[in-house]
Amino acid sequence: MGTSRFDQFQERLGIARNILTNRLKRLVDVGVLEKVASENERRAAYRLTTKGEELFPVLVALYQWGDKWAIGPNGPPLRIVEHLTGRLIDPVGPLSASGQLLGIRDVRLEAGPGATSHTVERIAARNLAILGVSEEQTP
Amino acid sequence: MGTSRFDQFQERLGIARNILTNRLKRLVDVGVLEKVASENERRAAYRLTTKGEELFPVLVALYQWGDKWAIGPNGPPLRIVEHLTGRLIDPVGPLSASGQLLGIRDVRLEAGPGATSHTVERIAARNLAILGVSEEQTP
Repeated sequence: MGTSRFDQFQERLGIARNILTNRLKRLVDVGVLEKVASENERRAAYRLTTKGEELFPVLVALYQWGDKWAIGPNGPPLRIVEHLTGRLIDPVGPLSASGQLLGIRDVRLEAGPGATSHTVERIAARNLAILGVSEEQTP
Repeated sequence: MGTSRFDQFQERLGIARNILTNRLKRLVDVGVLEKVASENERRAAYRLTTKGEELFPVLVALYQWGDKWAIGPNGPPLRIVEHLTGRLIDPVGPLSASGQLLGIRDVRLEAGPGATSHTVERIAARNLAILGVSEEQTP
């Protein structure tokens, strides 16, 4: 939202300074934010790294969920539009080949190369519970 | 993932029972989970409400982000595929009219009906900081 300095974050979030300090440090440590040095520590700025910017789809999905399920009496506080065209963005989510949104019951999980035997078990149990299919029944 | 009972959650998450109790209660209170009554409280089950199921796009986006930015040495633990076709789902996010993923710098915020004067200010500051445009310069 264009906020970059400690005092701005503190004012806009309304949280205690020590909590904000810890959270900013944590976000820097995990590589979501980077600190832009300044001679005056109080003027130090934080900006999103590429890793941080790429959380954008997560935030858009959460925002759209909030618009539907946690909306205030006056309606959505903001709209996200494609800058080039002004077109309101569509609901975000996994899509079928024909462009329809896929829900939780429209997808199957498969083990990837990093799956542990525990993961393999959980995937099978999930597909059985949600889709009613066992591994052998998948196409 | 097909988990529904307290003891299953406890075993799979590995967190303290009192913490799990609080979290499940919170998720029920906000309407993301609902409790399915049982004569034996220890066998009580929880299932996602529609509100909860519709968080699916948020989880998919977060999962895909993790696959790119927080991946283990062996690669992704699982894949999400369209059940009907077996096709791996594409990266989730806001799309242009031509189907290209839009990033944080490709969208503009506009005030919605629920915007407070504070929100209007923040939107203008965000568009200026990220896009370098003021309200008057938007198409």
